[in-house]
Amino acid sequence: MAEQKKLVEEITSMDVDFTRWYTDVVTKAGLVAYSHIKGFLVYKPAGYALWEAVQSHLDARFKATGVENVYMPLLIPENLLAKESDLVNGFAPEVAWVTSGGSEPLQERLCVRPTSETVFSDFFHSDVQSYRDLPRVYNQWCSVVRWEKETRPFLRSREFMWQEGHTIHATEEEARARTQQMLNVYADFCREDLAIPTVRGQKTDKEKFAGAEATYTIEALMHDGRALQSGTSHDFGTKFAEAYGIQFTDRDNKLKYAAQTSWGLSTRIIGALIMVHGDNSGLVLPPVIAPTQVMIIPIQQKKAGVLDKAFEIEAALKAAGLRVKVDASDKSPGFKFSDQEMRGIPFRLEIGPRDIANGRCVLVRRDTREKIECGIEEAAEKLQGLIPVMQKDMYERAKKHLEDHTWTAATPGEFEQTFAEKTGFVKAMWCGDRACEETIKEKYSVTSRCIPFEQEEIASTCVCCGRPAAKMVYWAKAY
Amino acid sequence: MAEQKKLVEEITSMDVDFTRWYTDVVTKAGLVAYSHIKGFLVYKPAGYALWEAVQSHLDARFKATGVENVYMPLLIPENLLAKESDLVNGFAPEVAWVTSGGSEPLQERLCVRPTSETVFSDFFHSDVQSYRDLPRVYNQWCSVVRWEKETRPFLRSREFMWQEGHTIHATEEEARARTQQMLNVYADFCREDLAIPTVRGQKTDKEKFAGAEATYTIEALMHDGRALQSGTSHDFGTKFAEAYGIQFTDRDNKLKYAAQTSWGLSTRIIGALIMVHGDNSGLVLPPVIAPTQVMIIPIQQKKAGVLDKAFEIEAALKAAGLRVKVDASDKSPGFKFSDQEMRGIPFRLEIGPRDIANGRCVLVRRDTREKIECGIEEAAEKLQGLIPVMQKDMYERAKKHLEDHTWTAATPGEFEQTFAEKTGFVKAMWCGDRACEETIKEKYSVTSRCIPFEQEEIASTCVCCGRPAAKMVYWAKAY
Repeated sequence: MAEQKKLVEEITSMDVDFTRWYTDVVTKAGLVAYSHIKGFLVYKPAGYALWEAVQSHLDARFKATGVENVYMPLLIPENLLAKESDLVNGFAPEVAWVTSGGSEPLQERLCVRPTSETVFSDFFHSDVQSYRDLPRVYNQWCSVVRWEKETRPFLRSREFMWQEGHTIHATEEEARARTQQMLNVYADFCREDLAIPTVRGQKTDKEKFAGAEATYTIEALMHDGRALQSGTSHDFGTKFAEAYGIQFTDRDNKLKYAAQTSWGLSTRIIGALIMVHGDNSGLVLPPVIAPTQVMIIPIQQKKAGVLDKAFEIEAALKAAGLRVKVDASDKSPGFKFSDQEMRGIPFRLEIGPRDIANGRCVLVRRDTREKIECGIEEAAEKLQGLIPVMQKDMYERAKKHLEDHTWTAATPGEFEQTFAEKTGFVKAMWCGDRACEETIKEKYSVTSRCIPFEQEEIASTCVCCGRPAAKMVYWAKAY
Repeated sequence: MAEQKKLVEEITSMDVDFTRWYTDVVTKAGLVAYSHIKGFLVYKPAGYALWEAVQSHLDARFKATGVENVYMPLLIPENLLAKESDLVNGFAPEVAWVTSGGSEPLQERLCVRPTSETVFSDFFHSDVQSYRDLPRVYNQWCSVVRWEKETRPFLRSREFMWQEGHTIHATEEEARARTQQMLNVYADFCREDLAIPTVRGQKTDKEKFAGAEATYTIEALMHDGRALQSGTSHDFGTKFAEAYGIQFTDRDNKLKYAAQTSWGLSTRIIGALIMVHGDNSGLVLPPVIAPTQVMIIPIQQKKAGVLDKAFEIEAALKAAGLRVKVDASDKSPGFKFSDQEMRGIPFRLEIGPRDIANGRCVLVRRDTREKIECGIEEAAEKLQGLIPVMQKDMYERAKKHLEDHTWTAATPGEFEQTFAEKTGFVKAMWCGDRACEETIKEKYSVTSRCIPFEQEEIASTCVCCGRPAAKMVYWAKAY
């Protein structure tokens, strides 16, 4: 136990310093390492396996809605990026430029894609002629580069991995419906696969994506009470089609501009997983998404038959469809326990000589540390039953945390006091004026997270200027 | 039928102009489109789906041998690239350089990865201390950039997708064994999943990878008799460890340099699939790898019940584990037939009003065009039986083509005559001298493809200089 304690003590407690706790978990759970370039991460096996799990779950959800995967070029010519003025103004300050290829300087510099609206639009321009060519519902999995000043693993990197969906439709109504549909896919994925509750809503004009008519978002609440934008879906109307000349002949034989959307979810979501579910022993992964669900830890593994039995149980659990590993390293059981806890593996199965003699083993839940004794033969069935229970419990705890940290402020005084005393979301009325948003940001270091779809009438006046209110907004400090 | 003929006529016949046939297939089967940057492709849904199929089959084979996926940064600092002199000399002329990030020029320029030995070695340098940390068997799926002068879809691009495996071991023996093991994984994958036979062997020093002690290769033979290097596996010995200072404390408590390997297979393999199996109607995909295995084509689909029955059959085939689609577009059956043939979908299932009345349908094999009539109820079972048969037949035809186009030349005269009259591989003896390799390349425009593992004693003297022979080599014109 001394050894186990020692290992656990290596993580800063989240109550002492949440930022250091986060960095400790990210590195000690073996997710990433830093490279020689600021903001460019090395994804180690445990970190990349999490991203693979996100990909496979989300990709299946996409394909169920008719999404087709494609791949667009990594580099974008400057003139192509410049065609849509809002987009280029939004992204130009943070792109990386390639200026020579081989030993020769390039005639036109190329940027490493920060996002691919421009290349998709350029492709649609030549690929879409008739209403028969519509809709196209495309997605790509790739990495993008944005030259951020401040960087933190997963939350803000200069290179990050994501998926970017890009669709094109005959009507603006259809595009708007697709924008909503994909936002719902993200929210369902977060709730069902990641056990993360989110608030759905629309971004204010100040916070929306450069070039979008409207941006929709899902916002999650981290353990420290700060919000994390976890997925966004953009409705472009015909804005890009007009900039890139994407016209099609409709059924009525008239030439019309097509309507577009894009939507993205990135490796940021791994930051959300860590900060929603983690505890002072490390990561806690929801069993549905966990790359390894069960770690079998043999006790007194040098005694005859112990390791054999551990591998026998591994084979039986695998055959039952569980993702399972045996820690057969030459470390002590105490070390292995805390290592499994640090890595957030949802269950451990302890098996020693006495257990084997009795035909029993011990299961331990990572989230509650509850110990469940059961017969070796029934371990698979027991675990299959525990997975949905643990998944649901984790979601309920996260939902309670979100609800317990969502406040209401009716007046400027209440608004100020809440941010002075509490952490979390504050629901308050807003006049719709960008100036008030900026004042609020300056005064309290909080931003508008979204105008939620579920509106409430908390007061009749803006929490900043006192003029008539237009919308209820979720405000919070955010990552 | 007139319409079908017309569509088919759009492809250049491979006997008339193989290069144009290839380009026609690549674009008309909807695999890729060209972008505005030379050598950067747009992968359309059918092209990307093929790459996804390659990824899922190969990734499963990798993981079965203990490979773990990771992800390394896209950009590499110049000083890191420069540490291994052979590698930098090999790649410097063809890398793309990033010189500014955001609005600021960078202090040190960064190259877009052309391959990642340097970043993996740099990571291993800080991550490997003890024999307990070894081996590490890593792989990443990504795209790389090499500024090639001549480009052709899949075969040679400035950006291409691939996997690059990078492993590190305590002993050179273990590294060498891993190099061989992964070459065999590639050969098995080509044979079993792609129905492509390959010749296994070692590259000559002239043709090996920059920085490798030894490069192993699998070489396939295209329909026009030219060879395509389809996957390579490199044994680095301790060369990179010495350049990057990767030392570990071994069991004997001594500090030693670690041994490394790398191995890669790229989107080139899609070029091989096209040129090994394609015909004058387009692509022919082996059923094991085909993203869509069966296209259901309704005849007289406007008649009541036809489309319903087509979707009913689709559901039944899907439930049986087949990958299937219905072509319910408003095109004629003739158009749909030739479209399905162009796209290389292994089977089509024709279903019309008369078939429905009789409870029958017609299956057509893409490779032989054989028609098989069967009951609607037994279609799933029939197709499941046909898949391994068609896969095997395709492999056997490709193998026969390879064997029929492999020649033996014992003397300089025979060597010259064979290349003048035949296409394909020529097996001939070589003294081991680089000068002879260069002479042969200059005289006949052929390169040494590999020193095959299965050696034969064709003659006792070199086919170029007449001095004593060291090895038998496969020679060919190559892509």
